[in-house]
Amino acid sequence: MTKQEVAERFQIPIAILEEYESWGLCDSVRQVMDVWEYDDRDIERLSLIMTLHDIGFSKEETFEYMRLYLSERDTQAERLSMLNRRRSDSLDEIHFKQMQLDRLDYLRYEL
Amino acid sequence: MTKQEVAERFQIPIAILEEYESWGLCDSVRQVMDVWEYDDRDIERLSLIMTLHDIGFSKEETFEYMRLYLSERDTQAERLSMLNRRRSDSLDEIHFKQMQLDRLDYLRYEL
Repeated sequence: MTKQEVAERFQIPIAILEEYESWGLCDSVRQVMDVWEYDDRDIERLSLIMTLHDIGFSKEETFEYMRLYLSERDTQAERLSMLNRRRSDSLDEIHFKQMQLDRLDYLRYEL
Repeated sequence: MTKQEVAERFQIPIAILEEYESWGLCDSVRQVMDVWEYDDRDIERLSLIMTLHDIGFSKEETFEYMRLYLSERDTQAERLSMLNRRRSDSLDEIHFKQMQLDRLDYLRYEL
């Protein structure tokens, strides 16, 4: 499939596809006559990349995670550590927002 | 009290004090010999301004809220409506972050 076909069929933003290509991590994305050809494995990886973005990973963190994911050596512990760090940051953000809500409710109560 | 004294004694960022002065909302902040003089009522209002920032109000929303707060007419319903809107946005943000966390946990589970 071409980039355009992938973008339309799987609702993947062109920006994500270009990010993916720019990494040059995957030998499975092949350039044929100036057009990238995506196969099923690419789609699977792109789905993971979208999930990483969705859970709040930056571009750089997503790249790092995918580099580990596609590595030939065992990187499970490193990836788990990245996810755990993100999880801890997410929890902090949620607690901060909940504290904001408490202050807001106090202001409403005072009115 | 001068701006410097207020900033040090009440740990109010200079940026907030300058924002407050720039609004020109309060006749109680008096300019004496090129120096603003803050009284107790100003400190009370500045405390409210800091709370509004803390609950996630933008500069413009804080200004609008303070304009209503200092108005001579009854603005309680309008202020409550602003707080309710912010509350609803905060809840949406928390739910979004909780969904992120669920996706993240699923990724950890899959590892």
